[in-house]
Amino acid sequence: MSGAIFTWIDGAAGDVVPVEDRGLQYGDGIFETILVRNGKARFLELHRDRMQRGLTRLGIRFEAHQELTTEITRAVSIAPPLAVLKIIITRGSAVQRGYAPAGNPLARRIVSLWRSAPVVQEREQGVSLQVARLRLAEMSPFAGIKHLNRLENVLAAAEILGSPSTFDCLMLDSVERVISGSSCNVFLVAQGELLTPPVNRNGVAGVMRAIVLREAQRLGCGAREHELTLPDVWRADAMFVTNARIGVVPVRHVREHAFVMNDFVTRLATHIETLDA
Amino acid sequence: MSGAIFTWIDGAAGDVVPVEDRGLQYGDGIFETILVRNGKARFLELHRDRMQRGLTRLGIRFEAHQELTTEITRAVSIAPPLAVLKIIITRGSAVQRGYAPAGNPLARRIVSLWRSAPVVQEREQGVSLQVARLRLAEMSPFAGIKHLNRLENVLAAAEILGSPSTFDCLMLDSVERVISGSSCNVFLVAQGELLTPPVNRNGVAGVMRAIVLREAQRLGCGAREHELTLPDVWRADAMFVTNARIGVVPVRHVREHAFVMNDFVTRLATHIETLDA
Repeated sequence: MSGAIFTWIDGAAGDVVPVEDRGLQYGDGIFETILVRNGKARFLELHRDRMQRGLTRLGIRFEAHQELTTEITRAVSIAPPLAVLKIIITRGSAVQRGYAPAGNPLARRIVSLWRSAPVVQEREQGVSLQVARLRLAEMSPFAGIKHLNRLENVLAAAEILGSPSTFDCLMLDSVERVISGSSCNVFLVAQGELLTPPVNRNGVAGVMRAIVLREAQRLGCGAREHELTLPDVWRADAMFVTNARIGVVPVRHVREHAFVMNDFVTRLATHIETLDA
Repeated sequence: MSGAIFTWIDGAAGDVVPVEDRGLQYGDGIFETILVRNGKARFLELHRDRMQRGLTRLGIRFEAHQELTTEITRAVSIAPPLAVLKIIITRGSAVQRGYAPAGNPLARRIVSLWRSAPVVQEREQGVSLQVARLRLAEMSPFAGIKHLNRLENVLAAAEILGSPSTFDCLMLDSVERVISGSSCNVFLVAQGELLTPPVNRNGVAGVMRAIVLREAQRLGCGAREHELTLPDVWRADAMFVTNARIGVVPVRHVREHAFVMNDFVTRLATHIETLDA
């Protein structure tokens, strides 16, 4: 893949995985995408916490915590000033055919480092979103987890491939709730507080989403989960999207609907950028 | 994996795939499991039709139809009397990080052949099922497709790992509809007809399920899709499970509830076993 600086698989440099890996066979695993900035993996403990929640929920036997820490440290030490660290943990190699994780396989870890571009123009000028035609499944038993079953995100993202000026698309569920972007969480500014959809039916509990909920309150602004629909979007004072790589990025358009830049969103974005984490 | 006779990856014998394969990264692909019996891949055209529907739905660029046919022919020619052919088609290698299938990658095909055991005792004596605690997501945009996002099946199957006398577990959705087993479709015999849950909200449109719907009617028995619940199960005259490998297998117990063997189910199972396909 263009941009990959290196990949370690179970601690060794490599570029292939066994075909019997359950990540490939069933999407049986989780991942994390961590921003590395100036020699520091940002919000690493929050990423590790989420990773552990996913592993626990999926019952994946991961014992290589020390090895992973060593690999992250090594990756960060050789990273350019701005990079993305992607960690995949799969349930490891299947010991026989079939869904059941027979033999309690040991997890496989894949650590890769990627160059990343600074998010400057997007943060200063805001971005445009479309609304995906795809509708998300509801009541996923793995809602909130950053697992490897990501076909919904892939097909939503594919809808805007031919539109380079579109940053991402909003994903709605089958009863038209707004859930998230394909690769980001979403927030509305409405009546002086921040609202973001719950992630208990579908969606991913983003690390940057958690940071925004926490830091907005530190800046004196209410911030909470709330079910949202497209009419809520049209009524909102402002909108922004978040993920670990981009931080906070204002939304200027959803379809033809225009938002103005919002002072609090700009302040929040800058505040989070400058956190020593 | 124990039991694999060989694996071909894009036409070459192999046991690894590139780490950037989108099947691993996102579960971005589909698969088929085909029974090979006495030198014949059973119901191959139905499997290929379903495979093509999945590829079309996911927008995967698969052009190697002729190569795949050659590989299937070659696999069948060296297969033992009873074997399973597993075909995975992924969207191929990611050309950059991110969900969007940028660069319209060419699909990767993974063809593997497995020894299989005859299903004799199960068909003669019936099997026991449990009810999974996991509840399936609803309104999946990929309902019916045999795609690689199979965490639900994995976690349901994991629930019965410690219970070797349990053949599979019933998977229900969040409003307690019965959908399928973790690796099979389910049918009830009720008031003289066969009923099986629709697969338009979740579940897989099994090839053997389609054959049962067709062949039951040929044998003079009504067979149709109908939403089912556990109370429907308790009220049913008989129950059976199906997939390409096992054909038709009677269910004797769901939890503590017992079914008697049913003459029509036995006749249907034998009829399908003896089809020249």
